[in-house]
Amino acid sequence: MINAPLSTASQPLRIGLAGLGTVGASVLRILRRQENALAARCGRAIRVTAVSARDRTRDRGVDLAGLTWFDDPVALAKSSEIDCLVELVGGSDGPAKAAVEAALASGKSVVTANKALLAHHGVALATLAEEQGVALAFEASSAGGIPVVKTLREALSGNNVTRLYGILNGTCNYILSRMEIEGLTFEACLADAQRLGYAEADPTFDVEGYDTAHKLAILTSLAFGTKIDAEAIHVEGISSIAPLDLKMADELGYRIKLLGVAERTKTGIEQRVHPTMVPKSSAIAQVMGVTNAVTIDADAVREITLVGPGAGGDPTASAVVADIADVARGTAGLPFGLPVARLETPTRAPMQRHEGGYYVRLAVLDHPGAAAAIATRMAEADISLESIVQRRSESAAARDPSGRSGAPVPVVLITYATSESAIRAALEKVSADGHIAEPPQVIRIERE
Amino acid sequence: MINAPLSTASQPLRIGLAGLGTVGASVLRILRRQENALAARCGRAIRVTAVSARDRTRDRGVDLAGLTWFDDPVALAKSSEIDCLVELVGGSDGPAKAAVEAALASGKSVVTANKALLAHHGVALATLAEEQGVALAFEASSAGGIPVVKTLREALSGNNVTRLYGILNGTCNYILSRMEIEGLTFEACLADAQRLGYAEADPTFDVEGYDTAHKLAILTSLAFGTKIDAEAIHVEGISSIAPLDLKMADELGYRIKLLGVAERTKTGIEQRVHPTMVPKSSAIAQVMGVTNAVTIDADAVREITLVGPGAGGDPTASAVVADIADVARGTAGLPFGLPVARLETPTRAPMQRHEGGYYVRLAVLDHPGAAAAIATRMAEADISLESIVQRRSESAAARDPSGRSGAPVPVVLITYATSESAIRAALEKVSADGHIAEPPQVIRIERE
Repeated sequence: MINAPLSTASQPLRIGLAGLGTVGASVLRILRRQENALAARCGRAIRVTAVSARDRTRDRGVDLAGLTWFDDPVALAKSSEIDCLVELVGGSDGPAKAAVEAALASGKSVVTANKALLAHHGVALATLAEEQGVALAFEASSAGGIPVVKTLREALSGNNVTRLYGILNGTCNYILSRMEIEGLTFEACLADAQRLGYAEADPTFDVEGYDTAHKLAILTSLAFGTKIDAEAIHVEGISSIAPLDLKMADELGYRIKLLGVAERTKTGIEQRVHPTMVPKSSAIAQVMGVTNAVTIDADAVREITLVGPGAGGDPTASAVVADIADVARGTAGLPFGLPVARLETPTRAPMQRHEGGYYVRLAVLDHPGAAAAIATRMAEADISLESIVQRRSESAAARDPSGRSGAPVPVVLITYATSESAIRAALEKVSADGHIAEPPQVIRIERE
Repeated sequence: MINAPLSTASQPLRIGLAGLGTVGASVLRILRRQENALAARCGRAIRVTAVSARDRTRDRGVDLAGLTWFDDPVALAKSSEIDCLVELVGGSDGPAKAAVEAALASGKSVVTANKALLAHHGVALATLAEEQGVALAFEASSAGGIPVVKTLREALSGNNVTRLYGILNGTCNYILSRMEIEGLTFEACLADAQRLGYAEADPTFDVEGYDTAHKLAILTSLAFGTKIDAEAIHVEGISSIAPLDLKMADELGYRIKLLGVAERTKTGIEQRVHPTMVPKSSAIAQVMGVTNAVTIDADAVREITLVGPGAGGDPTASAVVADIADVARGTAGLPFGLPVARLETPTRAPMQRHEGGYYVRLAVLDHPGAAAAIATRMAEADISLESIVQRRSESAAARDPSGRSGAPVPVVLITYATSESAIRAALEKVSADGHIAEPPQVIRIERE
């Protein structure tokens, strides 16, 4: 039975490669470098026969001689010269979607690294792949070189996943790591990240959490056997994080990470992306710089964490080539591990009913009784405080050695588990009371 | 093509379960709990039809009604009532080997958690599986619930692995973690580990590194595409580690872990198991208690680390069930990812030619000129020292406040990269010079 692909599928797998950027060029280099090993592993040769990209003249450092060139990726997808389309064009719609649909519709397997495409059209594309009896593989779409798709789809077959959380965006983790270690502002670290090529000229997509959300949408589906529901994700980015938050986190035994979290709660599947306080001793807190990590809690395996590069040409190409090898071997399986008809429509857990601990930083005006008024508002909402830290602001101290200046003083509250709605309601009252100088900073705490 | 297993293989996969200990009972429970999900994932039902264990009367907390009972696992393996043998008997030879061979020879797939069997007979068994065109899957044999076999065999298909290292024995990591955190002796922590069920009554197999070596032998083969060569592994255990070594490691920025390391060096494949100094900032250093972790360095993906439970009924069963699902889906592939004929016979890198940094702790007699004589011996062997730490022994200080007592004083040397033969030769001369009171403690340093 397992020798079937080796004996019957002796024809080479012919690859059409759409998109010749950093990842595409690396895929081409790896397929050539590993030609013999891959043929032995898959029982058949893997050969790139045709390519498509925007600019035919650009030097990509790889030899394109002998490959059929297509200006149009859709024409490549439909070509009878290929058996499998590797889509590295990017974008949730446009040519990427058209090419993937054309390939699947013409009975070709597809390997893609396109998280936006999957997050928006994953279920429809998987349905098409299933109807055609071909593969749709997307290991590289989430967490780059980390084999989290394969782990969720295959290695945890016997598990009920209860929670998945991860650092899925290297740009944000790089910025937060440098802010923490060097005490710099978000803006300074972002500028450095842009200079070093870790952040785009328009960084919104990364720093505001949308990139993490796309990846999380895919992983949630794999983890819980549910239809992708990207619109349900609560998304907050890291641009509001201040150096003071990182300093306070450190003092209180936490680090701040932009996490994507998917959890099965009693109200449904909760999906959220936001800056998160994680205990310094946790595995996820150790992950610094551009590295990604995903932790999966499940009933049988308890907890596993996968750490590795979430981006970059070679690591992403490593995942693309693994998918190509699965297609060549005939072991790619169903796109989401289950037939699409078996994927459940997830019940959305409303964010207002999220339960957990909170870090709240308030700029408290130096009014007599302000602290007591705040504490009362919390108590009224049944919110118990684990700790309260009040720091006299340094600038205020400089101006007025008596310590009373009228300038706002940072006060940090760490709450025990409460609900999002309770904390929001209490903080609205605190704001209305007129004791704080700016909107509260609220950062959720993730338990280990 | 990917729908083939779903449409043609609609017959249930009938499992024969040999061994009903903690892992076996958990496999049975998981297969029942996940019956519907697994059927949807695999396109066919998975059903345990027969079992074998030593004691028929023992209450295992699982219902065995309706299952055919075999006293002899070999009879189970040959039974026409099963399609796949799950071997959880254990042991490198005896009934486990006989049952696995019988199953493969009669055209049945095998799933096993048996590291000793694989380490000693893996290549022969894989050959038999290949000849019969059946699967031999062994995810649970190394690092328990961590999907490291699947990762090496499938997810890194496009990579050349350069090094693999891991914490593969929870007992040793538990003991070293407690020795470090609580300053206890090896003996005290071992006794506690035995009391808590983390260590066997005869702990030799775990604490002397043999368990780690079995697992490493399997992972080395998968990582480098070489035949298993368990006899080539240099093995040292942790029983010689003193609380002072952990204290000195801490001061110097290291932790001590029992690592299994496999590396492609210029002299061949180096395989070694020994207590190792790892930088405190490394991912592997964060892994405390009974948790396991494996780091893989490879050309395309750079570095990935997998962390999770290395033992225990449910986590090990999680890996066994994932293998069963692969067999049911028909996607298990070749046992080592490559045809056995393509596995290379590894060139053994001799341990004497190992290169790296060393931690050396000497009990130096309080002779004038002793330190200079030791430094000279190191210089003669071309060994450069990164640091030298001399601690006046506390007991000596208590006896003689002048600091000169004649009692040995601990001196720790950290060397830059040198060779095993150089360090051994230099330390032989140091011993012969008569300046040290006991044999030197030597711990290798692993670079990140």
